[in-house]
Amino acid sequence: MTPYIHHVKYYECDRMGIVHHSNYARFMEEARCDLLEQLGYPFNKMEEEGIVSPVVSLSIDFKKPTTFPDAIEISVAVKEMSPLKITFGYTMKVGGALCIRATSTHCFLDSTGRPVAYADRWPDLTAKLTALIK
Amino acid sequence: MTPYIHHVKYYECDRMGIVHHSNYARFMEEARCDLLEQLGYPFNKMEEEGIVSPVVSLSIDFKKPTTFPDAIEISVAVKEMSPLKITFGYTMKVGGALCIRATSTHCFLDSTGRPVAYADRWPDLTAKLTALIK
Amino acid sequence: MTPYIHHVKYYECDRMGIVHHSNYARFMEEARCDLLEQLGYPFNKMEEEGIVSPVVSLSIDFKKPTTFPDAIEISVAVKEMSPLKITFGYTMKVGGALCIRATSTHCFLDSTGRPVAYADRWPDLTAKLTALIK
Amino acid sequence: MTPYIHHVKYYECDRMGIVHHSNYARFMEEARCDLLEQLGYPFNKMEEEGIVSPVVSLSIDFKKPTTFPDAIEISVAVKEMSPLKITFGYTMKVGGALCIRATSTHCFLDSTGRPVAYADRWPDLTAKLTALIK
Repeated sequence: MTPYIHHVKYYECDRMGIVHHSNYARFMEEARCDLLEQLGYPFNKMEEEGIVSPVVSLSIDFKKPTTFPDAIEISVAVKEMSPLKITFGYTMKVGGALCIRATSTHCFLDSTGRPVAYADRWPDLTAKLTALIK
Repeated sequence: MTPYIHHVKYYECDRMGIVHHSNYARFMEEARCDLLEQLGYPFNKMEEEGIVSPVVSLSIDFKKPTTFPDAIEISVAVKEMSPLKITFGYTMKVGGALCIRATSTHCFLDSTGRPVAYADRWPDLTAKLTALIK
Repeated sequence: MTPYIHHVKYYECDRMGIVHHSNYARFMEEARCDLLEQLGYPFNKMEEEGIVSPVVSLSIDFKKPTTFPDAIEISVAVKEMSPLKITFGYTMKVGGALCIRATSTHCFLDSTGRPVAYADRWPDLTAKLTALIK
Repeated sequence: MTPYIHHVKYYECDRMGIVHHSNYARFMEEARCDLLEQLGYPFNKMEEEGIVSPVVSLSIDFKKPTTFPDAIEISVAVKEMSPLKITFGYTMKVGGALCIRATSTHCFLDSTGRPVAYADRWPDLTAKLTALIK
């Protein structure tokens, strides 16, 4: 997959002059959306099907700060797939130097709030994600 | 009406060390929600009735920066009421000193996206807002 | 100048399902930073020279909502230049349709907080900005 | 310690209608600032001493969504203290129901970017934090 590039914005930096740590959860979401689009299942299509995908858990290790106007290269891998949940792993680099290592786990809910077995619903996407497991 | 107090958060400050200007539009929304609640028409009740209230226009004059951990005192007045739109005026002060003067104009839309004549729908709220015109 | 493209992020949308209005002030900043970079005076270089450029005033007219995953095309023009202030004008379009019309006025301050006469400091940038007046 | 109350804002909710997950990292920061203030060491005083306190790592478990206008009750405990790092634990509840469980680890850096042994610098604060270990 092509890594996703996030160009740091001025307003994403805090009083320490660096990207506020909460923003990395947003960059992870951007990279995840980009991955799904690259795989042919853009997130807004899932929403049109009545599926939402809330975050179940999140962890971020901050190795090195980033700041405006850095270009952050974000690589996303699939770390784990269970019948109802998928865990993604992320590395973020600036100029080749590791800045962030992170994971996020997601489930899928239909419009009644019930968990969706994504392998039944999107077998093709599931095959593509399985191929990305590292 | 009781002014609304916004306590500036660390993450609201930018690389200049001051509150990023985009955040004042959020503080205005907070103060507006608080006003509606004080008047007995909390915004979430409007939403439950199927009404949303998008912003039509916005203007902000920045007189003096604010920063963490300032307590910003926000006063809201009604500046103008037309059949489909309401304009609010805001002043924000820290320690008595004027920091921000702003206005925002809003309409009301029903679930089909059609404009709502608020005076017909909420005559009591309309009377209360009219009393706040300055 | 080449218009700036902002790709709307999922997290920029609010409970109405559309981009929260406060975010447009951020998109304006992005487009302004891009303009300065196109003109050869990236904002971070100004900061390295000890100059900051706070917003003096801001106005936004909301014509049409935008949402994830719209690509917003933002054009920036110079509307007015006085010895200490510059006013930019913005139009934002999605698929050719006008969504936002906005202006922002900025000054420049040195590290002691004193206003900077930008024409003296950056004559070349001033000439380029003057050429963009509409 | 008195729990910290965060009143959810309209603009903190996303297109799913719930608080966007990235915001919880901000609420954690608010609660941490409040704790330090309750202990007599407000964060801005640390900054005035030339100390910053970046986040080293972060983890959040999302148990139950929150939304506008929920009042989130946030309790902060100290989970671990090593010579250069402190780990805080957080629980967030709405109406008594657990919504979020989270941790964050922080270090302290002086103006040259060197790690600060907080026990030497702030023995009184260290004693108070030690008393909060659970």
